[in-house]
Amino acid sequence: MTASPWLDDEQQQTWRAWLDVNARLFARISRELQATDGLSLQDYDVLVALTDVPDGSVRMRDLGVKLQWEKSRLSKHLTRMAARGLVARRECYDDRRGSFVELTEEGLAAIRAAAPGHAALVREVFFDGLSGEQVRELGRICATVLERLGDEG
Amino acid sequence: MTASPWLDDEQQQTWRAWLDVNARLFARISRELQATDGLSLQDYDVLVALTDVPDGSVRMRDLGVKLQWEKSRLSKHLTRMAARGLVARRECYDDRRGSFVELTEEGLAAIRAAAPGHAALVREVFFDGLSGEQVRELGRICATVLERLGDEG
Repeated sequence: MTASPWLDDEQQQTWRAWLDVNARLFARISRELQATDGLSLQDYDVLVALTDVPDGSVRMRDLGVKLQWEKSRLSKHLTRMAARGLVARRECYDDRRGSFVELTEEGLAAIRAAAPGHAALVREVFFDGLSGEQVRELGRICATVLERLGDEG
Repeated sequence: MTASPWLDDEQQQTWRAWLDVNARLFARISRELQATDGLSLQDYDVLVALTDVPDGSVRMRDLGVKLQWEKSRLSKHLTRMAARGLVARRECYDDRRGSFVELTEEGLAAIRAAAPGHAALVREVFFDGLSGEQVRELGRICATVLERLGDEG
């Protein structure tokens, strides 16, 4: 830490813009998902995380780390999604590996139905205004920040 | 909208990195604020929004637009913050201008205590790894996306 903890004007301006983009982008994505697919952004994130793994089954603890959600928040949210048939929970008391969450056929159908509209929106509001070089530079910036954030989870 | 709604590989990679950065950055900021200042990130965002205005008083509706929170979420959160003395709510039934939220002296003290550590963390994990040109380019990227998101609120 250097003498002054404050951001300079340029950093401050960029940081505000970053926060604004995020608040408005996620609000917009959230509204559209809800309106067209009846999914919250959180539902969508969980379903995407489950489609990322080969057999659609993930240990609760790993899902929490991946989504960066606290245990109680994740547990409550999965209970609601399970009640709607989008995921199933499987307890493994016997082998101490903890609980698993699985994608159901309904969950898979929901993410398949929602994905094209979601991708189109992300492209429209986010990528269509940026050059290829900007996309690559943004990728490098994000990679740098991720590295600085370290391996914590 | 073009023929294919999908993101290309580079866009997909950058989008994932963007989502990862956000999830992990806000989780980290949130943990540190809670640990050192007893504030949630949401508390902090509300307090910042109230210090941004000259007299520390904002109409509920405007605050909701600024934070991109739905009315019920904002209302519940402000009730909890008011109970802790960080903000005060002032109803204006008589002039139809709706409710106002005000920063209290305790709220001002809380944001003043938290701000230096928060700024130092943002600089450490976000800006210290980026060149001045990257900060400017990121600012331009964010401005472009904000423009594409339009004036909705």
